[in-house]
Amino acid sequence: MKASDLGEFGLIARLTEALGSQARAGRLAVGIGDDAAVWRSDGSAVIATTDTLVAGVHFLPERTPRRDLGWKALAVNVSDVAAMGGVPDFALVTLALPEETPVSQIDELYEGLSEAAEAYGVVIAGGDVVRSPTEMVSVTLTGRAEVDAAGEPLVMRRDAAREGDLLAVTGCLGGAGGGLRALRAAPEDEALREAAADSKAVRALIERHLRPQARAQAGRAALSAGIRCAIDVSDGLLQDLGHVCRASGLGATIQRDKLPIDPALTQLYEAEDALRYAVAGGEDYELLLAGSRESIDEAARQSDVPLTVIGEMVADPERRARLLDASGREMALPSGGWDHLRPSGRERG
Amino acid sequence: MKASDLGEFGLIARLTEALGSQARAGRLAVGIGDDAAVWRSDGSAVIATTDTLVAGVHFLPERTPRRDLGWKALAVNVSDVAAMGGVPDFALVTLALPEETPVSQIDELYEGLSEAAEAYGVVIAGGDVVRSPTEMVSVTLTGRAEVDAAGEPLVMRRDAAREGDLLAVTGCLGGAGGGLRALRAAPEDEALREAAADSKAVRALIERHLRPQARAQAGRAALSAGIRCAIDVSDGLLQDLGHVCRASGLGATIQRDKLPIDPALTQLYEAEDALRYAVAGGEDYELLLAGSRESIDEAARQSDVPLTVIGEMVADPERRARLLDASGREMALPSGGWDHLRPSGRERG
Repeated sequence: MKASDLGEFGLIARLTEALGSQARAGRLAVGIGDDAAVWRSDGSAVIATTDTLVAGVHFLPERTPRRDLGWKALAVNVSDVAAMGGVPDFALVTLALPEETPVSQIDELYEGLSEAAEAYGVVIAGGDVVRSPTEMVSVTLTGRAEVDAAGEPLVMRRDAAREGDLLAVTGCLGGAGGGLRALRAAPEDEALREAAADSKAVRALIERHLRPQARAQAGRAALSAGIRCAIDVSDGLLQDLGHVCRASGLGATIQRDKLPIDPALTQLYEAEDALRYAVAGGEDYELLLAGSRESIDEAARQSDVPLTVIGEMVADPERRARLLDASGREMALPSGGWDHLRPSGRERG
Repeated sequence: MKASDLGEFGLIARLTEALGSQARAGRLAVGIGDDAAVWRSDGSAVIATTDTLVAGVHFLPERTPRRDLGWKALAVNVSDVAAMGGVPDFALVTLALPEETPVSQIDELYEGLSEAAEAYGVVIAGGDVVRSPTEMVSVTLTGRAEVDAAGEPLVMRRDAAREGDLLAVTGCLGGAGGGLRALRAAPEDEALREAAADSKAVRALIERHLRPQARAQAGRAALSAGIRCAIDVSDGLLQDLGHVCRASGLGATIQRDKLPIDPALTQLYEAEDALRYAVAGGEDYELLLAGSRESIDEAARQSDVPLTVIGEMVADPERRARLLDASGREMALPSGGWDHLRPSGRERG
């Protein structure tokens, strides 16, 4: 059996199993399987997450400005901390670089990292530079959370949804997937590419793909509004919602008509493609929240980005996420999200 | 200019510069440039470090059992925390794997990680699995340290050596470099390799290369004995001592006759080769300590591994580490340590 037969989630499940006895260890509150790990530390809690971008797998090396790559490498980690409702804190950065990498490219990468660090209040505390045939940027980010009177970390978890909870997402969906398609489709010829990029909609989508905005403030607003279940939309809405369903032991329904599809996406692509990117495109880094109507309303008031209610958590022995059309019928699901180790899976970026 | 022209240390210096303003940020006590970063957190301090092993650069993919690789990936990070005098705590693991990686190999890697986690009291709190043409294991490890009455973290730093401090190392030196040579030299033929490995000395050296022992207890003992300057010997004794010299604004002298050279090394290789591995071989993961005679003596009493005094810190405007022969004359230095991005540099593992 090969890695590609198990896929990313299978491999992570196997790791959870291999390390299960440790994961039950005292101070660890949230182990492998959520957006980030959480452990108790003195009077508060530490959140920690790591994400890696690999050339040719997570980014197109020829078409990704390294400044954007640096930004993204940090922002996707901030997104994980945001999905827990935490405050991002310190980062360690590992660069794996081929020997022939131009130093100017590395400087650009550092600039992008710095910009994101500044934007999200992160301090880059250290790192490692290694030689590697494959270019890779890996970031580990820690964050902080409060603890309650019983010493339990106050965070949003995947397994905390309740039957009847409303589902809401920040911002709009599908733009990053559409942006990747636009970036791929852009002709090799520089002049032609610039002409295509003159389209405002194309530029907007490519920007969504290259420079994701982590919903750091919205995550904290949701937590303070009383929401206790969230996930960031990194693998595609339905796939990420599926994680919430399985972890919470519930099903979920999403109403197609309520989805906040990226306007640039509907402008450029056919409705069916736009829908596919919105529910399975991945890399939008919006937050998906599950909570009572009151907590969602309050989160919407406090958040710096619009929230849209798109569905609800329901009892369902199959623990599935279902997409419903206007008449309430389940729609056939577009193929589900990205899975980085499956050769059949499309690339994530 | 290419990455290979700057080398690892040049690139890290550039990163320090690019991120300098942040590094001065409030809670960060030790930023880029030491074995690990240190920041204040409530009433204590957090230590964080990251290290990556890349196939073909840091390990020989065909000759490295993945169980050993998993062990080493965690142990080398524990070594960094030990060099600060901290207690290792939580780890995040990133695996970058080619699609065709056999799952049995991944299971072995997890076993090795688990073994090291158990041995050093580390909890693996999370991680990431990504597809990659190049196999890679990256670990980020946090640890804890106390703070003093003024709130300053009690750790051992590279920049804290004083003129007249004695230099001592734990254990013995050069074994890992000799082991890599033995592993490289081992014939492709499995049977022949096993015959060669029948030699106890060969086995011991290969074990040192594949399964480094982090000096976690010795690091804590040194700190509690009052030592405030340490580094782990990962790049080679003279190179690592050079880091201490430059950071502390001093020179250092090492007496060749006092070096605790690995006995298996002297048994197998010529004296000159053995010396070269001992002072420049890298990857021994012993601790190099600088402190008063009293503190070194006390550390030796408390430590679970022998300490050997090998030299001292001296005034030196050139801030150089010098190797002296029996008559006190400076010896020509064997080429200095590993530098992973320099094509001319030998591989580290």
